[in-house]
Formats: sequence, C-alpha cells, structure tokens
Amino acid sequence: MQRITVLGAGAMGAGLTRPLVDAGLDVHLWGTWLDDHLIDAIEAGQPHPRINVVISDKVTTYRSDQLAEAIEGSDVVVMSVSSEGVPGVAKLALPLLGDAEAIWMTSKGFCPDPDGNIQLLPDALRRIAGELGVTIPPIVAIAGPVKANECADAKPTATMYGCRDIEVAKTAARAARTPNYAIAASGDEVGVEICAPMKNVYAISLGIADGLEEATGVPHHNLKAAAFAQAIREMSLLGQKLGARPETAYDLPGVGDLEVTGLSGRNKVYGVRLGRGEKPDEALAEMTRLEQTVEGVPATGLAMTLVSQRASDIAGQLPLLFAINDILQGKVSDVLAAVTQAVLPVRP
Amino acid sequence: MQRITVLGAGAMGAGLTRPLVDAGLDVHLWGTWLDDHLIDAIEAGQPHPRINVVISDKVTTYRSDQLAEAIEGSDVVVMSVSSEGVPGVAKLALPLLGDAEAIWMTSKGFCPDPDGNIQLLPDALRRIAGELGVTIPPIVAIAGPVKANECADAKPTATMYGCRDIEVAKTAARAARTPNYAIAASGDEVGVEICAPMKNVYAISLGIADGLEEATGVPHHNLKAAAFAQAIREMSLLGQKLGARPETAYDLPGVGDLEVTGLSGRNKVYGVRLGRGEKPDEALAEMTRLEQTVEGVPATGLAMTLVSQRASDIAGQLPLLFAINDILQGKVSDVLAAVTQAVLPVRP
Repeated sequence: MQRITVLGAGAMGAGLTRPLVDAGLDVHLWGTWLDDHLIDAIEAGQPHPRINVVISDKVTTYRSDQLAEAIEGSDVVVMSVSSEGVPGVAKLALPLLGDAEAIWMTSKGFCPDPDGNIQLLPDALRRIAGELGVTIPPIVAIAGPVKANECADAKPTATMYGCRDIEVAKTAARAARTPNYAIAASGDEVGVEICAPMKNVYAISLGIADGLEEATGVPHHNLKAAAFAQAIREMSLLGQKLGARPETAYDLPGVGDLEVTGLSGRNKVYGVRLGRGEKPDEALAEMTRLEQTVEGVPATGLAMTLVSQRASDIAGQLPLLFAINDILQGKVSDVLAAVTQAVLPVRP
Repeated sequence: MQRITVLGAGAMGAGLTRPLVDAGLDVHLWGTWLDDHLIDAIEAGQPHPRINVVISDKVTTYRSDQLAEAIEGSDVVVMSVSSEGVPGVAKLALPLLGDAEAIWMTSKGFCPDPDGNIQLLPDALRRIAGELGVTIPPIVAIAGPVKANECADAKPTATMYGCRDIEVAKTAARAARTPNYAIAASGDEVGVEICAPMKNVYAISLGIADGLEEATGVPHHNLKAAAFAQAIREMSLLGQKLGARPETAYDLPGVGDLEVTGLSGRNKVYGVRLGRGEKPDEALAEMTRLEQTVEGVPATGLAMTLVSQRASDIAGQLPLLFAINDILQGKVSDVLAAVTQAVLPVRP
C-alpha cells in the first residue's frame, strides 16, 4: 500500500497521520464539515487545536466538499470521525472506495441500526454498505492505549489492529508500524472493537474512586484496583458473548486502554465529579458547558441496551456496568456503596 | 474456625486483623523480634506506626518470645512477615502448629533453597517443614490489590485466596470475608503467589513512565499503558510456566494488584526516580537512607534467576522483565529507549 486517506481531522485522525507519514505512506487527511477550523490550523502550520501538535506538512489536506478527491486512488481509507458521525460519513464515503484494499477504523462506539439494534461500528459499516448496494473491503478495527497527542508527537505508542482476516491485519500492521508506533495484529475484530466504548464506561468508575478520595481525604486505591479488575472481567465476558476471544480484553485494547483512560480523560474526570458528590446530570451539564464530551455516558446506555438484546443471560455477571448505569440514572444515593457492592467479589 | 494467629505485626499483618476481627474471629497477633515498637503502639492504643490506623483492642498481642502461646489452639496461622523473614519464622512456627487446619500467607516473594533454586514461598514452607520433619496443613496464598492502611481502616478491599485444594480456599474465604473485605477463592496457588513479587518488579516500569513525564514535561501515558499490558502478559506467561492458570494474572492478583501498586508505593516511586534520570544505585541508596525498602529490586534479580532455572525457553517473551533488570544493573544509558523496545509489540 502507498496511499492512505484519513477521514476526520479531529484529535485521533490528525494524530494518526504522524506514524503513517513516518511509515512512508502518502497521507491524505479529510476534514468533515465540522473540521474546517482544524484544517485551517493544519494548513497554516499551527498546532492542531485539539492536541497542540503541529501536523506534518507531508499530509495533504482536504475540505469536506473534497471527499472524492481525498479518497481517489487510496489503498486504505481510515474512518476517524466521532461515532455519531460514522453513519453520515460512511454513506458518503463507502461508494467512493474504488479499489481500496481495506477500511481501517479508529472511530469507536455503538451504533443503533434503524430497528434499534445496537451494533458495533464495523457491523454498522457493513450494514450501511449493504443498504447502499456497494461492496466494501475488509475492515480493520483499531484500539489500544493511544492518546492522540502523544501519538502525534511520536511518543512511544502500542496499539492493536483487529480484522476477521488476520492476514489483512498483519498487512496493515506491517505497513503502518514505526519504531514509536507498534501494532499487534489480531484476528479478533469484535474483541478489539468492544473494548473501546466499554473502557469509557468503566473509566467512570475509576474516576469515582479518585473522587471519593478527594471527598473524604482518604485514598480508595483498593476500591479503584478492584474496579479495574472487575471492569476487565466484564469487558472480556461481554466480548465473548458477542464472539470475541477472552484474551483481547486482557491485552492492549482492554487492560492497556483502560489504564490510559484511567490516567486522564473526560470519562475519568466525570467520574471524579460523581465521586466528589456531584449529581450526575449537573456534573454532565457542567462538562457540556466546558465543551467536554463524556463518551462513556451515552456508551453506558447503549451498552445496557446491547446487553438486554444480546447478552441478557450474563447480565448478572456485569454488576459494575449496571452500577454505573444506576449511578448515571440518578438512582443511587450512595455512590461508594454502589461501586463497592459491584466490585467486591463473592466468588464462589 | 474460631481462632487465628497472625505472625508479623507489620503493615500487612496488622492491617489484616481488621477484617478478621470484623468477621468475628478470635485474632492473635504475634510480633517478631523486630516488631516490639509496633506491638508497643498497638497495646497503647496508638496508631500503628506504619499504617497510621489504630488496631482493634479485640486483637490479642504477643511478643517475639511468646510464639508458642500465640499459636496454641489456633485453627489458622497466617504468615505475614517479610519474605526474608519467612524461613526463620517458619522454622520456629511450623513445629508449633498443632491441629491448625491451614496456613495462610500474605508474605510475598521468592525464596532460594540451600542449593540456590528459587522457590515461591509456599514451596519454601513445604521444604522447610520437610527438613524439620513436621507435617503441615494446606497453604492458602493471599494476593490482590490490598493496601494495608485501607484494609486496616475497613475501606472496600477485594483480594484472592488461592490453595491447591479449592475447598480449603473457599472455607478460608467464607470465614474471613466481611462487607468491606471480599475474597475470591481460587485453586491456583502458584498463580496467586507468582503475581505478588512480579507486580513489584513491573511497578518499577510504570514508575519510569511517570518519571519520564516529570523529566520531560511531556506525558508518557501511552508508554505506561503499554508497559502495564506487557507486564500482565509476562506475569501470565511466567505463571503458566510454573503451573499457574493463565487467567489468575488477569484478575485481582495481577491486573488488580499492579493497578494499586502503580498508583503509589515504593517500587513505583523508585521507578519514578529512574525515569527522572537518577542512577539506579544512587536512587536505591537514597531510598534506603529514607528507610524505604524497594522490594522490586531484589525480586527482579531473583525473578531473573528463576527464569534461567525454570523458564529459559520463554525468556524471549519476557522483554520487560529483562529490560528492568538491565536498567537496575546500570547497563542502560537510555531508559526510555529500553522500556520502549520492551513494550512496543512486534506481533506477529
């Protein structure tokens, strides 16, 4: 492969261009209709407003009305828009893929189909392609502990590329890896994909433990660690129910990504507010006011629907997910007790 | 079971008395010849000097010359001395066990036998018992994310009890659990045991990532998360080589305990010093001067010997252990490069 087009000029799309350029690829970056100011900054050689890193001038930028031009002749197209943006961009982009050999995805989340069935994004892409009557190449799901600003700055980063066809994942991994951007290839598309939104859900509980420390002046490290282990267990179980391999949650997409998400990020920060005693709706309103999107909040609701649709028989094994949902729904008066009950194991 | 005697009045031994008392047990706490000042504080109703929590007056304390009295009539004896103290205390205590139904162990580490073979502590206990010609009851290994001060303060805590005979682990779990001290029972003694010293080793690498952030002003979160995932992988692989189940490292003793150890603790702090650029021997000398024992340092050397003795065929799959050892040996000029090379996967 030679040419790769990244769709979405936000933090992750822009950040990903760094290893792609370093790997010697011809990188196109297309901005959506929401990204004009980001493309402006990139073209002016200014730091990217979301990640504060200058994007390489080897990247060719395209505006929202130049989608066909951006994609034309590309061997790979990378979906890097927000999860809510995926359906709209997919409808525009999928018919333009030409001879592209693969679609990569850094977009993360759940996507309901028109009947309300919760789908992972690769399934949603395949559904949309079917609705459009177009054939699409294999999809490579990308997940792992990648903060976009560090990736953009060529700080050491490890991630996982998962495709139903492991050979496609390996080809992708070989094409994009650099000394500072390592890629583990996996055949477990579902496992890689499910961890990404779920880690945002569970990061809220890690934040709650930190917030309890702030509120009480007493560390709750044991609780945070128990929540971490429970989160990994639940991610693995839910993934398996959807066809994933158990071990993917124990690797970079689960353990690794939950670690990095628990170090910083908005989901964790939201959890800290809850742990400090803020009401969930007020805390969310305040973060919205600060233009801080908390992906874990809608992901929790979608995950609950997903469980009811496809994993109801293991609902009892997902107490932390349910506790987080109860907390977000405002049903919990004692956040500490709710998290404690969810993560203190009674095994056997 | 009714009566339980904890050997060792340090942080973990003293901290453990809290859930044991709360579980309704008759708790004896024996201090070694190094613990007189700790017993003094406990008997005076003052906060325990190491964990700053007052120990319940329901705990009956014993001095080093009262070992037989402390153990007499106990259903369970808990080994909670430092790993270096285990052989000496074992030689004194094992002949006194009487009808005790189990030995529990919170002591953690590796123990070389007289021929220099590295043993896990339960194997060392069984060897010492054999040398003494005494028969001992089943051993229950205890590990998980338990900071002793939080445990002593009845903060929510989850841990794992592992015994070759799962029924013994279950009996122990049922006897000692409280609403704030949850116990998962496991049949995987080796898996529970191997994680405890290894997490101290790997916590050094997490600290290094934090230290690099301090030194450069730039977060290395992606690196820290990649190191976390690699550490879990290596703990699981090394454990399996010694007979452990893969999944124990993915649970409370591995994922959970590495999380809590990476939040704070001396091994992490030592790593921070290395990441900031301090030389390993100077950093260690400074921490020794501050009376801060860094268990991960001797554990690294012992783990390397263990690998050479019993796991040499998977040495290539333990790059992070080897990198940490090289760093501690002063063989590495560029700590960032060494950790990066170890944790950025080339898979396949």
